[in-house]
Amino acid sequence: MERRLNPKAHEIAILAEGSFGILESKAAAVLVRYLTDNVVAVIDSTKAGKDAGEIIGVGTGIPIVGSLAEAMKLNPTMLAVGIAPPGGELLPKWKSMLREAIESGLHIMSGLHWFLSNDPELAELAARRDVILWDVRKPPANLPIATCKAADVDATVVLTVGSDCRVGKMVVGIELANEARRRGLNAAFCPTGQNGMMVSGWGIAVDAVVSDFSAGAAEQIVIEGAQNHDLLIVEGQGSLVHPGYSGVTLSLLHGSMPDAMIFCHQPSRKGIARYTVPLPSLGEMIAQYEILANPVKPANVIGIALNCFDLTEKQAREAVELAERETGLPATDVIRFGPHKLVDAIVSMQNLCAKSSV
Amino acid sequence: MERRLNPKAHEIAILAEGSFGILESKAAAVLVRYLTDNVVAVIDSTKAGKDAGEIIGVGTGIPIVGSLAEAMKLNPTMLAVGIAPPGGELLPKWKSMLREAIESGLHIMSGLHWFLSNDPELAELAARRDVILWDVRKPPANLPIATCKAADVDATVVLTVGSDCRVGKMVVGIELANEARRRGLNAAFCPTGQNGMMVSGWGIAVDAVVSDFSAGAAEQIVIEGAQNHDLLIVEGQGSLVHPGYSGVTLSLLHGSMPDAMIFCHQPSRKGIARYTVPLPSLGEMIAQYEILANPVKPANVIGIALNCFDLTEKQAREAVELAERETGLPATDVIRFGPHKLVDAIVSMQNLCAKSSV
Repeated sequence: MERRLNPKAHEIAILAEGSFGILESKAAAVLVRYLTDNVVAVIDSTKAGKDAGEIIGVGTGIPIVGSLAEAMKLNPTMLAVGIAPPGGELLPKWKSMLREAIESGLHIMSGLHWFLSNDPELAELAARRDVILWDVRKPPANLPIATCKAADVDATVVLTVGSDCRVGKMVVGIELANEARRRGLNAAFCPTGQNGMMVSGWGIAVDAVVSDFSAGAAEQIVIEGAQNHDLLIVEGQGSLVHPGYSGVTLSLLHGSMPDAMIFCHQPSRKGIARYTVPLPSLGEMIAQYEILANPVKPANVIGIALNCFDLTEKQAREAVELAERETGLPATDVIRFGPHKLVDAIVSMQNLCAKSSV
Repeated sequence: MERRLNPKAHEIAILAEGSFGILESKAAAVLVRYLTDNVVAVIDSTKAGKDAGEIIGVGTGIPIVGSLAEAMKLNPTMLAVGIAPPGGELLPKWKSMLREAIESGLHIMSGLHWFLSNDPELAELAARRDVILWDVRKPPANLPIATCKAADVDATVVLTVGSDCRVGKMVVGIELANEARRRGLNAAFCPTGQNGMMVSGWGIAVDAVVSDFSAGAAEQIVIEGAQNHDLLIVEGQGSLVHPGYSGVTLSLLHGSMPDAMIFCHQPSRKGIARYTVPLPSLGEMIAQYEILANPVKPANVIGIALNCFDLTEKQAREAVELAERETGLPATDVIRFGPHKLVDAIVSMQNLCAKSSV
């Protein structure tokens, strides 16, 4: 087992050099949003002197600094790598900053495709300084082929699915789990991608797993989550109509064996981003998930989460109403209008199944 | 690029120690079936003195011998590893035989999960003796994320899909390509798994690829096949209703972007093997493939390939008739009744699209 890090137990400096922003560094933005109390600084010399809130609308009071040395004055205990270098390769200038961080005794959490722990120099240095290098995308050893064990857990399992990548499956999952906990439910967000993992301190990056074992990875996540929770919100990935990633999506559906699904969509998006594949109607996309779930374990989509960040308030309300009319399901934008309707739907479903003891 | 081996240019000894048989060693059996003229010996001391034909019904005249030394008397130039050790690990006794084979100057082609070329001792020995170790399951470096490039090839692409693993998708693919070639079509079988690759000398084991890139691997196979062929029969894997492997199946569907599909099924099979998942009806399973293909590239199932090895002649004929009545599609058992009907269906579809210049 890789040694993980629990980010909630740390004071975090985020390395986002040259890329801090909502779209430029999803990792840095979600860390600031969901670990606001833990983040002591964001490192980005191109925005130094500003405040995280000025750039991404959350994280007011978190300073953006120009160097690791400046960040060190705020006493971080961990460096979170929130840069996304082209091709996933690490530039030499960043490697020297990582070396400096390790020398300074910081643990490091990284979502890079390039694994820090595979670099002999960094690994040796980390061992010597007794700090953990947690490469969140590095799959655990000995993952099984899925065997439907996720069906046996006592927890209720809800999977966030969607129309495309980057429509909000992670954020929706976190928001639903947070709201469920506010209502007193013993709920956990189950991360399946690097950003959710860095927020939560556990999970498996399913898309980094050899495809024979990707459903098995989803199964493992559900089994681990169910050990201590009654309600699991599993983060979906990709889309059943995504030409590149649909296999990951289906592995997650069949591996996690959800009791219900929440469908995530960006109303302004008419086709798969960066492809010439038009999106089917909401109803068709929802039907695909249900048709594919059915033979392995029946599950329905019970709510719609719309990502209306690029719409006006009025347009967003109209989009929500339209989705509800089109599908007959409750819809919301969890960031703009709150996750309440969807948690209501989950609770009703949960009571209906009487599967959990909640 | 890994150095591949073209098995049709070699005299092959097959290592099937303790496991030669149709069910026990699928790799050995298909090599004997499809490379009959190239196989000089099968090594299995538990059946030594017999003839391959006596054990698996094909390969009459190919001797089964008790050791590599005996096989060497028949002047092989390549050893094909047709054993499937539990857990994919190589036992020490086999490793010593591999060492002996390399020392004797044999190239080695292996479908093991455990890569020979990663073993420093074997790799060093192979370099010294100038022989190739082709680990067919080792994915090529730098696979892309799929980008729908398979839609642009000039070749007609047919994908074999199916209800479960081990229902005949590989054999059907090989038989259809062979029959198409007999009719003068410039057809190629495109392998996506280790056994088909060992028969054909190329391909990618898609299930061994990191799931982000498995559709990209399928795309690469189609692009490579289309360089020199007008009709590609792409080997499918798994099943859309297989809890462990469905992701691989969908990656292949969206990565290879077929013009049509052949649905493979074993009529006696009522559920996914080794799982408690009952199979939906033929019509439902076919509809799933078409529904999932549709948003990325529409393709219909145009024929049914039944695997009736465990049925009597009469039962097999009845199963074929029933499948035809149930689906309105041409059906056959390609081994028992020949692949003609399905190649007819492909040719009609091809003429209809007038996509290829055949």
